[in-house]
Amino acid sequence: MSAGPTLALARFVAGADPERLPHAVWHEAQRALLNFIGCAVGASRHDTVTRAIAALSAFAGREQATLLGRPERFDCLHAALINGMASHTFDFDDTHLKTIIHPSGPVAPALLALAEYLPVTGREWLHAFALGVEVECRIGNAVYPSHYDIGWHITGTAGVFGAAAATGRLLRLSEAQLVWALGIAATQASGLREMFGSMSKPLHPGLAARNGMVAALLAQQNFTSATQGVEGRRGFANVLATERDCGRITAGLGETWELSGNSYKPFACGIVVHPTIDGCLQLRGEQRLAAEAIEAIDLRVHPLVLELTGKKTPLVGLEGKFSVFHSAAVAIIDGAAGEAQYSDARVVDPRVIALRERVTATADPNLDEDAARVRIRLKDGRVLERFVAHALGSLARPMTDRDLEDKFRALCAPILDAGAIAGLLEACWGFEQSPDAGALARLTVPRRAAATAIA
Amino acid sequence: MSAGPTLALARFVAGADPERLPHAVWHEAQRALLNFIGCAVGASRHDTVTRAIAALSAFAGREQATLLGRPERFDCLHAALINGMASHTFDFDDTHLKTIIHPSGPVAPALLALAEYLPVTGREWLHAFALGVEVECRIGNAVYPSHYDIGWHITGTAGVFGAAAATGRLLRLSEAQLVWALGIAATQASGLREMFGSMSKPLHPGLAARNGMVAALLAQQNFTSATQGVEGRRGFANVLATERDCGRITAGLGETWELSGNSYKPFACGIVVHPTIDGCLQLRGEQRLAAEAIEAIDLRVHPLVLELTGKKTPLVGLEGKFSVFHSAAVAIIDGAAGEAQYSDARVVDPRVIALRERVTATADPNLDEDAARVRIRLKDGRVLERFVAHALGSLARPMTDRDLEDKFRALCAPILDAGAIAGLLEACWGFEQSPDAGALARLTVPRRAAATAIA
Repeated sequence: MSAGPTLALARFVAGADPERLPHAVWHEAQRALLNFIGCAVGASRHDTVTRAIAALSAFAGREQATLLGRPERFDCLHAALINGMASHTFDFDDTHLKTIIHPSGPVAPALLALAEYLPVTGREWLHAFALGVEVECRIGNAVYPSHYDIGWHITGTAGVFGAAAATGRLLRLSEAQLVWALGIAATQASGLREMFGSMSKPLHPGLAARNGMVAALLAQQNFTSATQGVEGRRGFANVLATERDCGRITAGLGETWELSGNSYKPFACGIVVHPTIDGCLQLRGEQRLAAEAIEAIDLRVHPLVLELTGKKTPLVGLEGKFSVFHSAAVAIIDGAAGEAQYSDARVVDPRVIALRERVTATADPNLDEDAARVRIRLKDGRVLERFVAHALGSLARPMTDRDLEDKFRALCAPILDAGAIAGLLEACWGFEQSPDAGALARLTVPRRAAATAIA
Repeated sequence: MSAGPTLALARFVAGADPERLPHAVWHEAQRALLNFIGCAVGASRHDTVTRAIAALSAFAGREQATLLGRPERFDCLHAALINGMASHTFDFDDTHLKTIIHPSGPVAPALLALAEYLPVTGREWLHAFALGVEVECRIGNAVYPSHYDIGWHITGTAGVFGAAAATGRLLRLSEAQLVWALGIAATQASGLREMFGSMSKPLHPGLAARNGMVAALLAQQNFTSATQGVEGRRGFANVLATERDCGRITAGLGETWELSGNSYKPFACGIVVHPTIDGCLQLRGEQRLAAEAIEAIDLRVHPLVLELTGKKTPLVGLEGKFSVFHSAAVAIIDGAAGEAQYSDARVVDPRVIALRERVTATADPNLDEDAARVRIRLKDGRVLERFVAHALGSLARPMTDRDLEDKFRALCAPILDAGAIAGLLEACWGFEQSPDAGALARLTVPRRAAATAIA
């Protein structure tokens, strides 16, 4: 028998002791859960989600698990698929910066669904979640960047391992069964970057969640797979990457935690625009700026900003996400850059357009990617300046718990009333003490919808 | 808009006219269906199948579709998964020799399940089947052999396109929707050769069947994907192969038919042993040979035979499939080399062992892979010889319809009574005239089991 990385990961997941998980990692798991639920609830009425539900509802099984933010209930596998997809629909979910894996998307929905099926405490849930994230990110570390550069969407391909490991832990799989689960995960690894820009991009974490759970369920019945699914000659790392370092999978396993490198987006657009928005929001907050008082906004930004988000005249909401000009304008006018600021209506609002046309941006190769310089000339002649060295949401300046709560509230506001949102926030922060992890998902169902569904 | 291969395939599938399908292709589709059902029914009690059913039954949906040869009914997606897996469990299914895709495994189970859900005639079914096989094999042609050599199990990776195209046809998807369906298929393409030798190998066509159907169902709801899922810069052919020729996807599309290159295994073991078995069976049939009359059997075979199937002393049934010695012995004693000849009991039968020990094999690099020379010395001094230039089942000497029926009967005999088998054969050969394609699968359910399930 090999003692390679597949077996090492299986041993790690089977034998992990929750007492050895550092306090900071427990807390990061709760932050990730909170952010995951906010993103999924926020997108729960999006066409991407409603079309997938329409396509699959005739084939879904017993009503075992909640579709976050919605009245319908699906079997665990389909619920994991839909919720994983919803969480990535706004492109607003978390990011493991070393690999650009969105780690919660494949793991959390599989665990949430399983927790409505099996008795699971909040503590068991969070521990399994941390283990799943650890497995997917370490496998990602081993193959990044060649794997991503070829064209694989790493959130899908690495994510399936995370979902298999995490659900396998809750199913109390043996070491041998976890080896099989990882093998069955390996042979389902999929997701192409060609899909970026279409609904099939957010489908990837959903599929990874469902497929990882299928892997664990099959392994539980001693359905066999290869024993070296990750490192074998024709296994994941060799077939799906041109360069790999499988030593990174096991180095420091159980000592360092990949969740510590997780980050959260404060703004609902491409990360390169974040330092600009951050600077605009800081000046607005300090100076109580009104759009009409502004003569011009001059930005100095990393060259990638103009390359990726240089759209002067966005016509629909999605294009607004690729416009640094629109982003600066809504930051000043709305004091926010959440999903609401990138609606189809907001990009054609006359007041937004009027300010947007007074924004200029200049590429400055001396700036870091997470830095920007914002200069606002007011009609009264004053000039305000702000240099952002590290944007909010970067590892150097992470979102605070309070920031995450504000983001959560804004995401959930179109779906849930204030009382429900407050209850959810309390449940997320207190999740480690919850005796029934399955109850959390049900708190995301709008009350009227829940009543209708029960009636 | 590109007029590349993805769009060309979508156009082809959306617009195909059944009147243009040659008579021989209709017949080959029926032969493939017959062979598929025999393989799936035959394996319906195998551990691979029963463990997967045990793992997934709690999550399956409404009882929409038959599990071939079994009393349970699953939702269409899970039924497609289980039946596709069953069909490949014995490694006895059909082979598109140019690409070694097992073409029916991903396509037929998706269509059988859908035909129990929608009104579909036998003629519509067979036409959709031929289109699905065409799509998967043409995509396979474009990436074979580099794709397979890297480590992809092409039946899984190309198969998902076949299932998407075939079910998309039955769902009457538009050209644009079929483009999306092929894109969603591309982004699910998976299956590693590392799994060979484990239960996860037959899982691949099952997953391809389910995933292809999911792709078509999503596309039906206008769930979008990339428009160049096959040929795009980060699409299937570029990401999953080191060399590719996408021109092969469209060359002669609608004029030539890949089903014409489909082949069927007469014997339940690796194809390299087939010429040896064929020669032994010919001599046995002509000479009414008894094992006890034989002094020795001397084989001259292609060198690959000893490399792949040189096991002198198999201990379990699966090892018997990798023993040219065991295969020659059972061919002489039983007059057959079906699944029954590779049971755990048969490889330790004293009479089989006694004859096996009198078999020798010599590699002869001058022989083709589908050729063998069998020399039998009898105790009475006579010597019998037979040169097999092309084994039964090769394209040069295809199995006749009668051969396929015999194989079908042997596969189904442990599951169904003779009357049921005869009824199934009749239904398969008359399938083109069937007003209800969904009825076929239900004929595979053992009568007692069916009665129990209904009661």
